[in-house]
Amino acid sequence: MKVQVLQEKLKKGLSIMERVSSKSLTLPILNNTLISTEKNFLNLSATDLEIGINWWTLTKTEKEGKVAVPSRLLLSFVNLLPNKKIDVAVKENDLSVQCESYKTKIKGFSADEFPLIPKVGKEEFVVVKSSDFCKSLSQVADIAMPSTTRPEISGVYFRLQKDLIIAAATDSFRLGEKKISLKEEKLINKDYSLIIPQKTVKEIINIFGEKEGDLKVYFSPNQIMFEYFMEEVSHPEVQVVSRLIEGEYPNYQEIIPQKFATQITIEKEAFVNQIKSAALFSGKVNEIKLKVDSEKKETIVSSQSVDIGDYQSTVSGKVKGGDTEVSFNHKFLLDGLMNIKSSEVVFDLNGESGPGVLRPVGDDSYLYVVMPIKAS
Amino acid sequence: MKVQVLQEKLKKGLSIMERVSSKSLTLPILNNTLISTEKNFLNLSATDLEIGINWWTLTKTEKEGKVAVPSRLLLSFVNLLPNKKIDVAVKENDLSVQCESYKTKIKGFSADEFPLIPKVGKEEFVVVKSSDFCKSLSQVADIAMPSTTRPEISGVYFRLQKDLIIAAATDSFRLGEKKISLKEEKLINKDYSLIIPQKTVKEIINIFGEKEGDLKVYFSPNQIMFEYFMEEVSHPEVQVVSRLIEGEYPNYQEIIPQKFATQITIEKEAFVNQIKSAALFSGKVNEIKLKVDSEKKETIVSSQSVDIGDYQSTVSGKVKGGDTEVSFNHKFLLDGLMNIKSSEVVFDLNGESGPGVLRPVGDDSYLYVVMPIKAS
Repeated sequence: MKVQVLQEKLKKGLSIMERVSSKSLTLPILNNTLISTEKNFLNLSATDLEIGINWWTLTKTEKEGKVAVPSRLLLSFVNLLPNKKIDVAVKENDLSVQCESYKTKIKGFSADEFPLIPKVGKEEFVVVKSSDFCKSLSQVADIAMPSTTRPEISGVYFRLQKDLIIAAATDSFRLGEKKISLKEEKLINKDYSLIIPQKTVKEIINIFGEKEGDLKVYFSPNQIMFEYFMEEVSHPEVQVVSRLIEGEYPNYQEIIPQKFATQITIEKEAFVNQIKSAALFSGKVNEIKLKVDSEKKETIVSSQSVDIGDYQSTVSGKVKGGDTEVSFNHKFLLDGLMNIKSSEVVFDLNGESGPGVLRPVGDDSYLYVVMPIKAS
Repeated sequence: MKVQVLQEKLKKGLSIMERVSSKSLTLPILNNTLISTEKNFLNLSATDLEIGINWWTLTKTEKEGKVAVPSRLLLSFVNLLPNKKIDVAVKENDLSVQCESYKTKIKGFSADEFPLIPKVGKEEFVVVKSSDFCKSLSQVADIAMPSTTRPEISGVYFRLQKDLIIAAATDSFRLGEKKISLKEEKLINKDYSLIIPQKTVKEIINIFGEKEGDLKVYFSPNQIMFEYFMEEVSHPEVQVVSRLIEGEYPNYQEIIPQKFATQITIEKEAFVNQIKSAALFSGKVNEIKLKVDSEKKETIVSSQSVDIGDYQSTVSGKVKGGDTEVSFNHKFLLDGLMNIKSSEVVFDLNGESGPGVLRPVGDDSYLYVVMPIKAS
């Protein structure tokens, strides 16, 4: 192999590879990036056997070839190079990298040792706007619970509808659901309900979150693939292939309350700040109390702990329904509020033991259900 | 106690206290800040028994009093308050803090339980420019080695001369020395050679590094005190008192070479980048090699490791003296270069086993001596 590539480009590709290259002790080949040429493209690949990533850039290829080299070492080295042309060559299993006065030879491994990244059929796909899609995913991604006892809730649930993907995640204490618009109505032959590993969803957000173009999402019963095209040429720039989680996702629609006993509409930032303050005095159970006074149109946020002291503050806003008192885990409330981007939030309450529902004002595509801490 | 204080002011004082309030399990009172009134000043104090800090701000005092409260809790709470007036009051040992709708009562301890912060005589002192003094200290502070076997090198050495403080630190592999100008010639009665704990020096840099005014340094045989005055009124704003380390500092002057076999003058940033690159290939002994070619006026930086591969790059610059080859620990070289602020550095070399000396170009107030890794 002998190619020339710009430092900036190679750095970008390697920083994606390095994220998925695992620190595997049992399969050390997984700590490597496979570098190969495909005509006028340089191709990087990495996998942790759950997620596989392919990345391409246009290059001048003088001689084809391939080799696997340690991902972190190569990225660290390329990061330190000036943004100039880099000459990359393979001789046996050594990768030589040269840029101005910097010369190095990195010991690598035969490309044959590198695992294949599975292919996903290209028949069934939908198209979404990359950055919007990632913003939507980030509203549910953190709620999923890595769990070996209930693997089905360790991922993010995807359900395809006519012109929507419904994404949901829960850890059984709270649930987030987001409706993501497709760029056009789906044209695929089959309905898909899938569970995507949390790690995959987080990598998707990282890799595609800043990209302004379209993202294609390919569906198959056992794999999902996300693909982004280069602007200049009709060739993929990044493909992320992931395995899916087997099992049936819980029928979470049942627990979303269809009505409320009390509804408050309040300024989000003030509420967040008061919950953070109350959290300091909430002790080990993380319990903070909300007391809604429907006449005064205000909600008292309070907490107390024998060792630390006690706290109280008041947030005003619209109140519908009757007075109520209910306690929540402050972490769960804050997580939900952080997933909401609007300046005002609606909070439906259902007494001291019924679930609460947080929604952004002026956006019915998102909801966050949270269970109270029952009065003891 | 009953006083009114601006959130911004209190936050500033508490953030200083929180740094020194230790997480002591044996003496939990040390996790607290002592809050007290002194006429129209609010005074905060904290200590870890090695360093003691006093801080003052002007307030309206309605009623005098004092109490000790958990430093981290109070800071976390005050951080979340709006930048408005805060009402602070003490009732028994509870501190009540109120700001707009936020109200809290924090459980505290009797002020009598709080250890006294020692006083340092005000006779013997010198004056330095605060931010410059801290910049100078940061060029040596990290070199000292926290060590129980050789406590005398666990601190930063201070020697007072006519119009200078000479500050030095070593860990026996390298040494940094910085000459710090006094604002006026010293007028004190006695020579002082002191060893200041590394932690104290780091706190001094943190607390006074951004301050533009004068810093007074008070000397005594067992304690040192740093004092900064408020701009508006003739009253101290911060006092830091520290114990000193007993023992005799090594006569380090002996190891500073007075001549060189080879001297190179090179661009610092390029050199730093090449050392960082070489470090990636240096293996477990951290060894990188410099090879000076006096004819070509260039220095080859190289490293290699059986498992990883090998590296080479070239940095050009002035060369005096003969060719040489010498190996260094890349960490020690980088530490020294990072302490140098000039864009060019002079590096005196003394063969493969003699110490090297790094100096900024155009500034003879700083030097950094580093021992080579001897060829095996």
